[in-house]
Amino acid sequence: MRVFANIILASLLGIFAVACQETEQGRTLASTPRVSGFDATLKSAEKKITAQMMLPMTIPVPKDAGGGYTHEKHKENAKLIYDAGQLFKLTGEQKFADYAGKLMTAYADVYPDWGLHPAKKEQSPGRMFWQNLNESWWLLHVSQGYGSVKDVLSPEQRSKIETDLLRNMAEFLSDGSPETFDKIHNHGTWATAAVGLTGYAIGDDDYVQQALLGLDKSGDAGFLKQMEKLFSPDGYYNEGPYYQRFALMPFVVFAQAVEQNDPEQKIFEQRAGILQKAIYTTIQQSYGGLFFPINDAIKDKGIATTELLYGVAIAYDLTGDRGLLSIAEAQDKFVLTPESRKISEDLAAGKAEPFDYKTMRLRDGENGTEGALDIIRASSDPNDLTLVAKNTSQGLGHGHFDKLGFLLYDAGHEIIRDYGAARFLNVEAKYGGHYLAENNSFAKQTIAHNALVIDETSHFGGDTETGNKYAPKLGEFADSGDLKITTAEIDTAYPDVTIERTMALVRDAAFSRPIVIDLVEAHSEAPHQYDLPFYYNGQLTETNFELSAYATSRKPLGKDNGYQYLWEVGQAKAAAGLSQITWLLDRKFYTVTSSVPESTDIIFAEIGANDPNFNLRREPAFILRTASDDGVSLASVIEPHGEYNPIVEFTVNSHPNVKSVQHYEFGADDYIQVQTKDGQTVGLALAGEMSKTAEHSIKIDVADVTWTGPYKLFHSQKHIEAQNTRKKGNSHAK
Amino acid sequence: MRVFANIILASLLGIFAVACQETEQGRTLASTPRVSGFDATLKSAEKKITAQMMLPMTIPVPKDAGGGYTHEKHKENAKLIYDAGQLFKLTGEQKFADYAGKLMTAYADVYPDWGLHPAKKEQSPGRMFWQNLNESWWLLHVSQGYGSVKDVLSPEQRSKIETDLLRNMAEFLSDGSPETFDKIHNHGTWATAAVGLTGYAIGDDDYVQQALLGLDKSGDAGFLKQMEKLFSPDGYYNEGPYYQRFALMPFVVFAQAVEQNDPEQKIFEQRAGILQKAIYTTIQQSYGGLFFPINDAIKDKGIATTELLYGVAIAYDLTGDRGLLSIAEAQDKFVLTPESRKISEDLAAGKAEPFDYKTMRLRDGENGTEGALDIIRASSDPNDLTLVAKNTSQGLGHGHFDKLGFLLYDAGHEIIRDYGAARFLNVEAKYGGHYLAENNSFAKQTIAHNALVIDETSHFGGDTETGNKYAPKLGEFADSGDLKITTAEIDTAYPDVTIERTMALVRDAAFSRPIVIDLVEAHSEAPHQYDLPFYYNGQLTETNFELSAYATSRKPLGKDNGYQYLWEVGQAKAAAGLSQITWLLDRKFYTVTSSVPESTDIIFAEIGANDPNFNLRREPAFILRTASDDGVSLASVIEPHGEYNPIVEFTVNSHPNVKSVQHYEFGADDYIQVQTKDGQTVGLALAGEMSKTAEHSIKIDVADVTWTGPYKLFHSQKHIEAQNTRKKGNSHAK
Repeated sequence: MRVFANIILASLLGIFAVACQETEQGRTLASTPRVSGFDATLKSAEKKITAQMMLPMTIPVPKDAGGGYTHEKHKENAKLIYDAGQLFKLTGEQKFADYAGKLMTAYADVYPDWGLHPAKKEQSPGRMFWQNLNESWWLLHVSQGYGSVKDVLSPEQRSKIETDLLRNMAEFLSDGSPETFDKIHNHGTWATAAVGLTGYAIGDDDYVQQALLGLDKSGDAGFLKQMEKLFSPDGYYNEGPYYQRFALMPFVVFAQAVEQNDPEQKIFEQRAGILQKAIYTTIQQSYGGLFFPINDAIKDKGIATTELLYGVAIAYDLTGDRGLLSIAEAQDKFVLTPESRKISEDLAAGKAEPFDYKTMRLRDGENGTEGALDIIRASSDPNDLTLVAKNTSQGLGHGHFDKLGFLLYDAGHEIIRDYGAARFLNVEAKYGGHYLAENNSFAKQTIAHNALVIDETSHFGGDTETGNKYAPKLGEFADSGDLKITTAEIDTAYPDVTIERTMALVRDAAFSRPIVIDLVEAHSEAPHQYDLPFYYNGQLTETNFELSAYATSRKPLGKDNGYQYLWEVGQAKAAAGLSQITWLLDRKFYTVTSSVPESTDIIFAEIGANDPNFNLRREPAFILRTASDDGVSLASVIEPHGEYNPIVEFTVNSHPNVKSVQHYEFGADDYIQVQTKDGQTVGLALAGEMSKTAEHSIKIDVADVTWTGPYKLFHSQKHIEAQNTRKKGNSHAK
Repeated sequence: MRVFANIILASLLGIFAVACQETEQGRTLASTPRVSGFDATLKSAEKKITAQMMLPMTIPVPKDAGGGYTHEKHKENAKLIYDAGQLFKLTGEQKFADYAGKLMTAYADVYPDWGLHPAKKEQSPGRMFWQNLNESWWLLHVSQGYGSVKDVLSPEQRSKIETDLLRNMAEFLSDGSPETFDKIHNHGTWATAAVGLTGYAIGDDDYVQQALLGLDKSGDAGFLKQMEKLFSPDGYYNEGPYYQRFALMPFVVFAQAVEQNDPEQKIFEQRAGILQKAIYTTIQQSYGGLFFPINDAIKDKGIATTELLYGVAIAYDLTGDRGLLSIAEAQDKFVLTPESRKISEDLAAGKAEPFDYKTMRLRDGENGTEGALDIIRASSDPNDLTLVAKNTSQGLGHGHFDKLGFLLYDAGHEIIRDYGAARFLNVEAKYGGHYLAENNSFAKQTIAHNALVIDETSHFGGDTETGNKYAPKLGEFADSGDLKITTAEIDTAYPDVTIERTMALVRDAAFSRPIVIDLVEAHSEAPHQYDLPFYYNGQLTETNFELSAYATSRKPLGKDNGYQYLWEVGQAKAAAGLSQITWLLDRKFYTVTSSVPESTDIIFAEIGANDPNFNLRREPAFILRTASDDGVSLASVIEPHGEYNPIVEFTVNSHPNVKSVQHYEFGADDYIQVQTKDGQTVGLALAGEMSKTAEHSIKIDVADVTWTGPYKLFHSQKHIEAQNTRKKGNSHAK
């Protein structure tokens, strides 16, 4: 009623539009006109810098490694210079420019005398910092700060800062560090961006050209080449999203400067708009606001990182995509740039629309030919069931040995999870905040992942160089209504075994929610032991087999390749070729029902053995273990079900609805049949080839299952009836 | 600016107040007029009941125990009757009354023939349910439903429902179950409230009088006596908040009916407004929206439980306290009552103010003489550092053996935590959803708590009956600026030991945040072993001693009294009488620095041994263990510090600032001296007596510490200087 009253009023009174501004934008008083978050950021920055201006400047002689005092202090000073510069641009207040000038001058006084850092890293050392990557980061910020204020500095100050600080550092990072600067690697991007931004700030085009085209300006190296090489055509960065958001920062910041200074470069249009794509794929590779923690990844990192504050604001400026406003809302933080102001204002004006989270295959590799990260979402709801199949290439030095591994999310949580990196970022007591020894010896190993391990050794023998040579061969990827499916295989992870994995998200009326069907096949002519781990998250509630726990003693599951970090906590034999395991997480139950060979052992394990320094998180897993002379097939259904509601005190469907899973093979064709307790049957047929027209047939009990094309979902009777009823309902409605 | 424009407009245009209603209430357009949550609740209930009306009614013959199908179905039907009744009152639509009438008539058809429930509990069995507690719950809802609709039912229907259902059940619950009805116990309150509400609904005052005064109407039993006995004068319920919120429901619902029907009772004023107090203390006993999980408690339960939806709405109706609107906002759910509508509307109108979370001593026992639950909050911010000292009495059958134990919260998390109950509520696969065997054998035992254990046996020998006889003797409780302090002692938990514990929350400029000082003393003339556990929550980052982990094998810490459920995961010796242990949780570090006897062992443990069914959560602890012939003192500082920020990648103050803790004793007086790494000293002096005028003196190194009264906080030099500067600043300002 109130809405209606407003509309009448609004037309009666012209002046009304000023007061109830929102109405003008088609919104009602019941909606929320908000204060722009950017204004709060600006105020807080003004306050902070103004307070800093009262304090003496501190420019310590370089001493500490990453995370230490001098390291953090120099980072802080760079941010002060950058922020003061931005504040001057945004407010016009001279005091901010003066402060930035003073700080830079103080650095110019001392920087030329600094040799290599005392705690320098062997590869690419820095002078202010232990590695020149941090020096690039510093210059990227400070050069922008300088660019903002230089017009109001004295000629003497300008000359001193340019000569003794900016040029001195830029030359150290370019000519002085060619192995980094000319490398097609994200450290190279940081260096080229820093030097290029310095070029724009001091008006030296030579720097800009070196940055864009490499030291020799041939174009064989430099920023443009990095743009070509470092992202796949789908905008995937091959170290994974954790490093992607970091690599992204110099790309978008420098590209924006190029756009402003050399618009004829049309930098954002190059390679079919690769930089925009890269920003979008970084967001797509997240769940519950956090990045998929594949490869070396700190698990708390997500879309609210500083890099993506810049990235999302710039992408919004380029595209006007209102879905990005939802991301900005989730980020809930802003940076001191005009683009950030714009996104904040549009968000406050209520223009946000839901971000379009998608089911998508992100091809890996410069040409998109080196595997893919397959993301399958039950819906665009960011908290809905989401499956991530890791069919990517190795991902260089930060890659993990987890070919065809997967992660599963639901209801905002990790359900079947990846450990991520073993590292406490910047926590000095934890190996100085570096990657822990356990990162190599556990977190990277195959057994630390939801991926098939053969003979208790990791993929590629745990050798990164070998891993980098090979990528999975991709099969079908489809997103078609009730069936979303991905297939991939790898024949190089082990000498004489080809591993194939198909994962499908299936919607059928026999289940209240979508289920995941997972078929892992190992083809081999030699005897092997196969371990398929599921790092389930939650509290075990029931199994269909008798479980013998090691209740009064524990020993590690193995001696090497990561197995030494797992306690064996229980063991069981699958019951008549079926393993069914249910756990509870928060308010929901999850069951994995697997069709396994008769002799299969089920091992319950927990991370934490051989961990005298308490470096690892204690997380549980179960492992399906079987030995065979001629390969193996493990077909599982992952079923979310029921609700545990301690608040209003009810629990429903705590038991799974899956009664059995059966796997039928005929030649290269497969059929997985899922039967429910209430007598329904859902089937998934998979062909051994991708032809869309080939016909296939498999004998199931007495009947034949036949289909055309690479796959087919056979719905339950219940589903078909529901569809028919719906159709009838529709025709009635006409 | 917009605010100002509105004010001008509002005075210019009278009509404006209609359009921009909020302005009238002193708020601006920038704030958020919201849709009332109650309206959504009402709509959703209408939709649900209307859908139910299309379905056949199902009234199954009683069969299943709690959590089973027939149990849940009858609960659901009661809610349908209640909701339909409320909907009829709220909307006036006859169909809702008809539906409630139809359902009740259907029950009246079958109820008289139901004997005792086939799965009946031994004590107080029910007929529709396995225990008559559920039957009381059912009648409490259905009698209200009946009261709402009876005026529009036919005389035949009324007569049938009253005779065959309501009277039949009420008599079963009163005369038929005297052992429950006349008991001073929450089951009794459910029974009396249900029968009393039935009395009001059918107009039978006899029922009402029996409810209020007991079966014989003497007043020795019944609701009024329960009001007198079941809450302490501070509104504490002696089983703890988990059961308090459950016990509260029949109290507030029936009291409200008494208020409406017999206002001359002034029921809400009785015993100094005890029912209101009880509602408030239930809220005060929560952190992050969840109840303190002392005694048997499901940890997910908190202020959003249905019982408190009624409770808070009724309390708001009685008091108009706008702080309760914040609680309603956190609850974010409403029930179908006029009070809930009112609180929802006032919340939507933006009237909410922060709830006043307090530091408070909640005395336990009918006369407030049986110990207390001491809640110490750093501030009224519900997410700030909060200490809960459990100095209460045993808490009957649901009580745990954790005298002088404590819980610590910070930043929305449990920092040092209590296990709560070992139970998966209504999860059939977990022992039918009942309390697990591990509840008695582990969760109740002293070693499962942050409480002193002597000789590896639990308090009172683990005997509830003995425990119920004794409560701690309370010492000082004070909330005075920079020092908030509680002291208690118990000399009955063990035959020949008196345990004393003082816990203080101290604010001093030497620390960026408040710290907790904890002094545990055991006085004894006999040889004993003392174990003081800290169930820390997080990842261990550093210790001041060398820690020997059991990296390749594990064994249980003990054989009995809960010890058998702990894996021993590591062991160490304190370094020169000092134990310092730091862990990281989410974004913050916490350190416990303890002054301990030279020979003290530090045991690292983890819950989960002897747990073949995976019934227990894996949670870590460290235990200070020492043996002595003449008692022991353990003085600790718990220090929150630093920040780990993986999002913007910095970590500060990951190391504790405490350098040492020293404990000085002189007779019954104590002095705890805390030294920081930057040379500051904070001291806490504690007298052995509570006199406010007695003078005390302890020799510390070369100087004497002297004070008057039961305690004194000696601030650091830094604090004193800061105070002085502040004072000078103030005088300048004049």
